[in-house]
Amino acid sequence: MSNPTSGNVISMKDHKANTSAIDMMQSLIADQMAEVNATILKRMDSPVSLIPELAGHLISSGGKRLRPMLTLASAQLINYTGKRHIGLATAVEFIHTATLLHDDVVDESKLRRGKKPANLIWGNQPTVLVGDFLFSRAFELMVESDSLKVLKILSSTSAIITEGEILQLTTANDLATTEEKYLEVITAKTAVLFAAACEVAGVVAEQGEDVEAALSAYGKYLGIAFQLVDDALDYNADKTKLGKEIGDDFREGKITLPVILAYRRGTDEERAFWKRTMTQLKQEDGDLGEATKLLEKHGTVADTIERARHYGAMAKDALAIFKESPAKKAMLGVVDFCIERAY
Amino acid sequence: MSNPTSGNVISMKDHKANTSAIDMMQSLIADQMAEVNATILKRMDSPVSLIPELAGHLISSGGKRLRPMLTLASAQLINYTGKRHIGLATAVEFIHTATLLHDDVVDESKLRRGKKPANLIWGNQPTVLVGDFLFSRAFELMVESDSLKVLKILSSTSAIITEGEILQLTTANDLATTEEKYLEVITAKTAVLFAAACEVAGVVAEQGEDVEAALSAYGKYLGIAFQLVDDALDYNADKTKLGKEIGDDFREGKITLPVILAYRRGTDEERAFWKRTMTQLKQEDGDLGEATKLLEKHGTVADTIERARHYGAMAKDALAIFKESPAKKAMLGVVDFCIERAY
Repeated sequence: MSNPTSGNVISMKDHKANTSAIDMMQSLIADQMAEVNATILKRMDSPVSLIPELAGHLISSGGKRLRPMLTLASAQLINYTGKRHIGLATAVEFIHTATLLHDDVVDESKLRRGKKPANLIWGNQPTVLVGDFLFSRAFELMVESDSLKVLKILSSTSAIITEGEILQLTTANDLATTEEKYLEVITAKTAVLFAAACEVAGVVAEQGEDVEAALSAYGKYLGIAFQLVDDALDYNADKTKLGKEIGDDFREGKITLPVILAYRRGTDEERAFWKRTMTQLKQEDGDLGEATKLLEKHGTVADTIERARHYGAMAKDALAIFKESPAKKAMLGVVDFCIERAY
Repeated sequence: MSNPTSGNVISMKDHKANTSAIDMMQSLIADQMAEVNATILKRMDSPVSLIPELAGHLISSGGKRLRPMLTLASAQLINYTGKRHIGLATAVEFIHTATLLHDDVVDESKLRRGKKPANLIWGNQPTVLVGDFLFSRAFELMVESDSLKVLKILSSTSAIITEGEILQLTTANDLATTEEKYLEVITAKTAVLFAAACEVAGVVAEQGEDVEAALSAYGKYLGIAFQLVDDALDYNADKTKLGKEIGDDFREGKITLPVILAYRRGTDEERAFWKRTMTQLKQEDGDLGEATKLLEKHGTVADTIERARHYGAMAKDALAIFKESPAKKAMLGVVDFCIERAY
């Protein structure tokens, strides 16, 4: 496997400009995002008050709504002037939120530190059911698009996401996980929804298969890059800057690329350390620090971000068929933003 | 509220014939059920072996597959000769199984006795995710029916089921639950899927709205009757005969009609008993026996079955628009079977 050195895939010269790419995208689609936000509130409502209460815990907790944003930006990129993408952007966000809620349902032994997931506040059962509710509402919104093609894309997306998450469970704690298997997992659990979020805009705009394929590829590679960086950040996030705890994956024994590479490149002694901490989950104070040191020694966090750059470049190239526009500029900038939030 | 005496709604003279109604229905649709079974196996399969393993635990555990049976019988009733209902019958069974899996995810404090639910074998997280997988596969099957009307029915059914289950959670332990609220819960969590299972056969057969409405009404009232009897059986199942433990609802503090009626009809002392055991969940040895005695005293298990007879009669009347046929005879017989399994 190649081991690219830092910085040679995507030029860093636009670094400062990129950090504001999300802002640029947000202002381009502000009106439509307001419609999506209104649809989210309307469609997560229910006379059963526990539902909006619990769903709102996650939905209003201030994420960037990156996935619906991608649907709206894609629609703008191809000059779609209809309204069918508003419901679909909402559906995409609901699928994402439902996935997060179900991800929060863990067994007592695996409760994460440093977070207050929905299941700790309301219990496992309501958390599962409100996730189901959002899935169902997502399906209803998809059906309202009146497009069987959209329905095929999003229903198969849901199945793949779930399959990917189950695959991830079965590879958890397995240090022999290959980079290929890891890519399969993150493609399924993250990238496929990014891809669908972009692709459905092309479908409702009826611009042909080339446009759909380009949008889908952009979303897919962006999603892979996004997840690679997420997994890297879990070992080096600047807590004060990003409000994110580090070490969750380590504590859960979730095998991500920084560890896969460090395990492969490590000495016998280092491998014994990884087996004790991540397979047997016998962790002591100081182990996270030791793990971070080993990743640093082998440069695997930096290499993971390098891999992300590679997929980021592919995402950008997928947009080559579209002519220059503010939407295209924003979508290109968002790729760099997703990668550079690592710094 | 009226308090009908036993046996005056539906004649009992066909009792013996009715017990074999399920057998009759099964033999009428045996070939198509074989296709459904093959589709179930094929569509719950995955390269991620945990999925068929966990899903198979429930799916192969020998339920009668009443819901897909209703789809097939409804199709036969209206002489549908196509194949689109096979995938839909499978989708209906997947939705049901996913619901059961998610129902098994409970909090440690609420683990049910006398059962080995999937989450106790595989843990909460895989159980949730395999439920999600089945939901997604159900949705894919629905999309393959190429009918937006079917998709509208089944996606809204999913949302209503989930909403009903959440409503049930919020009314749990609440002895002030009215019969009306209780009916709302069981309609949402059980009857709506029975209704959809029947209705979709009418939709793919394209026989018009009267047929669809009749099938939907049959399924809905049968579903209400079915759940009423289920809730009655929880207090008087003959364990050796039905292989069902009694008292699960009591131990969980789930407020069902036998208790709603007994609480309402009870003395102050009896109400204090119900509050201690079902609201505060402070239960001692002998409490289930005491509860059963109180239900007996007020005749509320028998009255619950009487209510079921009422809805059973409505289910039968819904079929009045169809001419006599073996399928109609079987569908009428199944109503009595569902009610009389109480004896």
